[in-house]
Amino acid sequence: MKLATYQNHTRDGQLMVVSRDLTRAVAVPHIAASLQAALDDWGRCEPALQEVYAALNQGPVNGAVDFDQAACHSPLPRAYQWADGSAYLNHVELVRKARGAEVPASFYHDPLMYQGGSDAFLPPHAAIPLADVSWGLDFEGEVAVITDDVPLGTVAAECASHIRLLMLVNDITLRNLIPAELAKGFGFFQSKPATAFSPVAVTPDELGAAWRDGKVHLPLRVEYNGALYGEPQCGVEMQFSFAQLVAHVAKTRQLAAGSIVGSGTISNHDRSTGSCCLAEQRMIEIIESGEARTPFMQPGDHVRIEMLDASGQSIFGRIDQRVMGND
Amino acid sequence: MKLATYQNHTRDGQLMVVSRDLTRAVAVPHIAASLQAALDDWGRCEPALQEVYAALNQGPVNGAVDFDQAACHSPLPRAYQWADGSAYLNHVELVRKARGAEVPASFYHDPLMYQGGSDAFLPPHAAIPLADVSWGLDFEGEVAVITDDVPLGTVAAECASHIRLLMLVNDITLRNLIPAELAKGFGFFQSKPATAFSPVAVTPDELGAAWRDGKVHLPLRVEYNGALYGEPQCGVEMQFSFAQLVAHVAKTRQLAAGSIVGSGTISNHDRSTGSCCLAEQRMIEIIESGEARTPFMQPGDHVRIEMLDASGQSIFGRIDQRVMGND
Repeated sequence: MKLATYQNHTRDGQLMVVSRDLTRAVAVPHIAASLQAALDDWGRCEPALQEVYAALNQGPVNGAVDFDQAACHSPLPRAYQWADGSAYLNHVELVRKARGAEVPASFYHDPLMYQGGSDAFLPPHAAIPLADVSWGLDFEGEVAVITDDVPLGTVAAECASHIRLLMLVNDITLRNLIPAELAKGFGFFQSKPATAFSPVAVTPDELGAAWRDGKVHLPLRVEYNGALYGEPQCGVEMQFSFAQLVAHVAKTRQLAAGSIVGSGTISNHDRSTGSCCLAEQRMIEIIESGEARTPFMQPGDHVRIEMLDASGQSIFGRIDQRVMGND
Repeated sequence: MKLATYQNHTRDGQLMVVSRDLTRAVAVPHIAASLQAALDDWGRCEPALQEVYAALNQGPVNGAVDFDQAACHSPLPRAYQWADGSAYLNHVELVRKARGAEVPASFYHDPLMYQGGSDAFLPPHAAIPLADVSWGLDFEGEVAVITDDVPLGTVAAECASHIRLLMLVNDITLRNLIPAELAKGFGFFQSKPATAFSPVAVTPDELGAAWRDGKVHLPLRVEYNGALYGEPQCGVEMQFSFAQLVAHVAKTRQLAAGSIVGSGTISNHDRSTGSCCLAEQRMIEIIESGEARTPFMQPGDHVRIEMLDASGQSIFGRIDQRVMGND
C-alpha cells in the first residue's frame, strides 16, 4: 500500500491513498483525517485503506485525482519522533580517515543514533532555506521506517513486525556547524535543520523480495544539479538492520506509533557507486589530494532523491529540492 | 490560566481547565479536545479557555470536579518537540571540576542543548521503569516552556512573546550510560528515557512579578525519599533566559506550536540550596573527598518536584515518582 499527505493548510495535511504506479490518488477522510491518525489506530484503519488501495490499482475510484507529487507534504508533516541512525559505516570510516582517526570497535556493534527535530518537516518539493552559505549546507540520502507502538525493551528479533511504512529521507545538514556543536558534547542540534521525506510512504510488502532481513535491497538514486551523483545499494554494508535500529531506541524507552527511525546516509565501499552526500565526496578528495574541492550547496543548487524498482518504476516518488538563499 | 490533561485512554488525554488554587477542574471538549489541539489554534481557543478559567476561580461551574493530580498525564502526553537546554552553568562547572576539566569560554555565550524524545512522556505520578539498576537512574528538576509557532531565525528579543505556557520537568537520566554515549559523539540517546512534566501547565501571567527577563524568579523544591533535597532559585545564575534558549532552537529551523524547551537542571553556586539531581551531589563529594558516596536511584526510591508561590501555594502541582524495578 502507498500513502501520501497532500498539503491543505492544516498542520497534518490530507491523507491520500496513492496507486502503485503513482498516477492516481484519492482522499480518505472517512477512514482517517491524517497519516498520524491512521497510525494511531492502525488496526482499524489499515484494512480500510488497503481496500481503497486495491480498488485504485484496479480501475476508476470515485473522487480519485491525478497524483501530484508537488502537492505533497512529507507523509508525516510533523511527527512525535525522528531518530536517525548511522548504519553505513563506510560513511563513518571515510569521515574518520580524512582526519586520520580510527573507527572505534564499538561502532560495529553499537549503533550511532541522534534525536532529530520532528515538529516541522519540509515538503519533498520545498525549497531548502539557507540563511548563511558559510554554514555548509549538505543533503543526505537515506531510507527511514515508521513504527507502530513498540514496548520498552523490545529486542531486535521482535522489532521488524513493528515497522509499518518506509520512506526516503533528505536529512539536511549544516556541515560547518557540526565541529563546534559536537565539541560541546551534546550532539547535533543547530547543524540539523528541518528534514524532508519522500512524497510517498509504502508498506514493506510493496518492496517484495527487496525487503528482507530488515533492510531494503535496492539502490538509492541521488541526482545533484541534474547529474547522477550516487546510486549505492541500500542492502549492502548496512551494519545494523532497521529492526536493530528500532531496538536501539527501545532499549530504554517505548516508541509511540508514528515514530520515524532512519538509516543514516547510504554508502558503499565501492566508490563507483558514488555518494549520497557532498561531505563524503569531500572526504575522498581530502584522502586522495589533501583538500576538499567540492563546495557545499549554494542557492540554486538542487538535489533529487529517488528509488526505482527492478522495472524502473519509482517506488516512493521523488524528493526534489532547491536551495533558497535569503535574497 | 492553568491547564492540565487527564488520562482517558486516548493518546492525547482530556484537556482540563484547573482553578488557580488547584482544587477544581473542568473538561472543555467544546473548546479543544487536547492541549495540543488548543495550541494548534491558540488564537481561537485561548479566550474561550480564559473565560472558563475566570468562572472556575469565581464559583461553581457546570461539570467541574475536584482536581486530582494523580489522574493527570503530562500536560502534553506526547509532543512534536522537546529540546532541553543546560542553562545553569554551576551544574556544568561541578561536572567538569569533578573530572579536572575547565568549562570552555564558549559555554557562557552559546547554550548547551540536546534534542529529547517526545513521543511518549510519563504522567507526573507514574512510576519510573528501571530495567537495570547499573544504568544509574537520576532525576533532574527543571522548568520548561511551551511555545507557539516560532518562525525560522527569530531573535531572542522576539522569542519571549512566543512562550505560551510553563511547566516543571523531571528530566530522567541514566547517568552510567552517558560516558559511552557521549564518547560516540552524537549526544544523549539511550541515556535519556521518557521525561515527566508537572500535572499543571500555566500561562506566564500566573507567575506575576516572578516571571521577568524570560526567567522564573522562584525556588524549585525537590524532595528525595521524603526529605528536602534542594531548593535553588531558578532566576539566579540562569545563564540563558528562556527567550535565548528558544532563539537557539530557531537559529536554523522554525519551531511548531507545542514545542517544549527546557532550562536544564536548576543549580545555584550557593551549596546551602542543595541540588536538583543526584549527580551534582556526587560531584561535590568527588571534589571534596575523592569519591561519590550518594548512590543513584534504586527501586522504591522516590522524588517530588514542586514550586510554591510567595504564599506557599503550589503553582504547577507536584511531580511525584517512584522507581519501579523489573521484579
